[in-house]
Amino acid sequence: MVQVKESLSKQYNQLFEIVPPAAIRAVDIKLSAVPDIIKLTLGEPDFAVPDVVKEAVKKAVDDNDSHYAPSQGTLALRQAISDYVHERLSGPVYDPESEISVTIGASEAIYDSLSALFNRGETILVPTPTFCFYQAEALRLGLKVVEINTAPSYLFTAEMFEKAIQEHPEAKGLVLNFPGNPTGVTYDEEELKELATAIKKTDVLVISDEIYAELTYGQTHKSITNYIPEQTILIGGLSKSHAMTGYRVGFIAGPKALMKMVGLAHSGVVTTAPGPMMAGALAALTVARDAPKEMRDIYQKRRDIVLAGLQEAGFTAPTPKGAFYIFAKIPDFLPQDDEAFVYELGEKAKVGTIPGSVFGTGGEGHIRISYATSTEKLEEAMKRVIAYAKAAKEATELSTAE
Amino acid sequence: MVQVKESLSKQYNQLFEIVPPAAIRAVDIKLSAVPDIIKLTLGEPDFAVPDVVKEAVKKAVDDNDSHYAPSQGTLALRQAISDYVHERLSGPVYDPESEISVTIGASEAIYDSLSALFNRGETILVPTPTFCFYQAEALRLGLKVVEINTAPSYLFTAEMFEKAIQEHPEAKGLVLNFPGNPTGVTYDEEELKELATAIKKTDVLVISDEIYAELTYGQTHKSITNYIPEQTILIGGLSKSHAMTGYRVGFIAGPKALMKMVGLAHSGVVTTAPGPMMAGALAALTVARDAPKEMRDIYQKRRDIVLAGLQEAGFTAPTPKGAFYIFAKIPDFLPQDDEAFVYELGEKAKVGTIPGSVFGTGGEGHIRISYATSTEKLEEAMKRVIAYAKAAKEATELSTAE
Repeated sequence: MVQVKESLSKQYNQLFEIVPPAAIRAVDIKLSAVPDIIKLTLGEPDFAVPDVVKEAVKKAVDDNDSHYAPSQGTLALRQAISDYVHERLSGPVYDPESEISVTIGASEAIYDSLSALFNRGETILVPTPTFCFYQAEALRLGLKVVEINTAPSYLFTAEMFEKAIQEHPEAKGLVLNFPGNPTGVTYDEEELKELATAIKKTDVLVISDEIYAELTYGQTHKSITNYIPEQTILIGGLSKSHAMTGYRVGFIAGPKALMKMVGLAHSGVVTTAPGPMMAGALAALTVARDAPKEMRDIYQKRRDIVLAGLQEAGFTAPTPKGAFYIFAKIPDFLPQDDEAFVYELGEKAKVGTIPGSVFGTGGEGHIRISYATSTEKLEEAMKRVIAYAKAAKEATELSTAE
Repeated sequence: MVQVKESLSKQYNQLFEIVPPAAIRAVDIKLSAVPDIIKLTLGEPDFAVPDVVKEAVKKAVDDNDSHYAPSQGTLALRQAISDYVHERLSGPVYDPESEISVTIGASEAIYDSLSALFNRGETILVPTPTFCFYQAEALRLGLKVVEINTAPSYLFTAEMFEKAIQEHPEAKGLVLNFPGNPTGVTYDEEELKELATAIKKTDVLVISDEIYAELTYGQTHKSITNYIPEQTILIGGLSKSHAMTGYRVGFIAGPKALMKMVGLAHSGVVTTAPGPMMAGALAALTVARDAPKEMRDIYQKRRDIVLAGLQEAGFTAPTPKGAFYIFAKIPDFLPQDDEAFVYELGEKAKVGTIPGSVFGTGGEGHIRISYATSTEKLEEAMKRVIAYAKAAKEATELSTAE
């Protein structure tokens, strides 16, 4: 343990003070202390990485792939990403040489885009509830964040965009995330086209985080880069589609003029991604390209189990069309303060969830349930939530009757 | 290929415009076009990663180490880093829970430290010639960089520090790098103690990049954190010591009050480092802790070969006490513009080097030679340089005689 020099204890970036620490992790750590709890807290696949991906990593290690890769990633992987975006996400054909960067997960992709493409003081629109990372990073970089409440549909529509632009004509950027965390909501083709058409009339730059693209139920994901590639930075990665969270491989694609700056940010921050992890990602996007399908079918079954359980317990939630979260309204007969409720549910039902308000305006009175855990655990968790809600309801009725 | 919307082509962080692109990589790419060239350009070990490290990575992959690690790195690795810094670098005992973060190479460690601990407009002292990354990242973050020319000794002394503080009393930070890139210069115990004593009298925060610590010749590396841990952020990593550049594992250690902010920067930028790469790093710092010794002995022999060759060719250079670079003054009878000279040497002698001026004030008229390549190649390269210099000298004498 080292003591800081007292005069230096506040020598840090003051912008870091205005951002609350990562709330999801904090809740998760706190709930982990409850004995026998089933945690439906984190957005992390419980599956193992596909075997061919693992073999590719091990082969790279054996082949002494331990030297610096090109700073934007190996060309083979960038080519595979280009093919993948075009063939699977309906995106344009990005030039692997100048329009794609491989990053340390989607996290770095988001950070690099915000740091390279926006100036301090510029305004960015963030439809909420959404993954709190966007707001946190934007604020740390000194940007102005305007949250736009999308409740109760959770779909950020063309109409909402037009209204936001009228109210904030100074807006330079917009963050999209679909399928969305924490709501699981995504666009159908018509809705997406309408939104893109509205954006096209403006000079707003879109940061489109489509990391959950492969986890779309009952329809095929289409990227917004299909419509407005000239003003979009696409964020993606392997963490969700191939259960590769811990391998930390994401990517950014966009027009060359902007990617030049994004690439500078990337090489400045991390130099390059680890070679063996990139070798694994290459296998994922080529030989294991269909691996997500199998996982998706399992996620969809889990989604239905959780949705049915929550409804039986009295919660209401839109049926998620993607990702692996359900964003549920706490029923009236239960505590409405979502943060207090999450700890009560943790203590009494032994089920861990995330309070909706950490996802921004529109999230209050809700909880996020991640169904990226085993079917068995989800079934048990739902039993517990139903029993807890039933007991709570009876207690309420009893006290009302008295 | 995607066309950017014209109105958005300049929608980027204007601070990125003032920083020249990574010069070392650019020179390396340009020289790569010369047929049959021997490149002594990049600072990258030619050795393979120790086998036990490779086995540890593969085991982690087999064991499905593919989920999110704790954001600051696995606790086992942080503990190993704590032990390593204390036992091998003479540093204090850092608390693995709150005073150490595992990063994507030393690059991210430097970036996180600068972004978390300094405010826009603050001044940072950078002794030069040095690794150009520090200035580039500081400028992109909006800091003011004051270069301090350390030529001809290249050792940033207590006296130089005191003079710099008199001239720039507003300075908030200082970057140290020892053993140094590109000069190979490092401190003996007395010199380091004197510098630390001078710094201690001020509130200057030191970012001490000691990534080359294990590559110190004829003496044992001692960290400045041995003297002033209360005002130092220590940067280190496995890239140079264990030839693990492509695995991208670095670390930051410092007092808890500051590391809290550095940790926020880290988790915001990359979430966490890849699990299998951290498993490899753990093996490197435990079972393979002595691997650097063998490499160091080889580097030292190579250093002597290159130094002798350069001297025979007419170059002068201080004998490097660490790292794997020689920073040599171009002899008078050769072109003195170091950038032009590097391309001439590349074309005519077929030996690739880096112009000294990319390392900042004091580097003009010099070249950096990296001896992190095979002994055989180094011997051949020196033959070429000697032959080239001899011919050039004869031509000069001839023309003077005319």
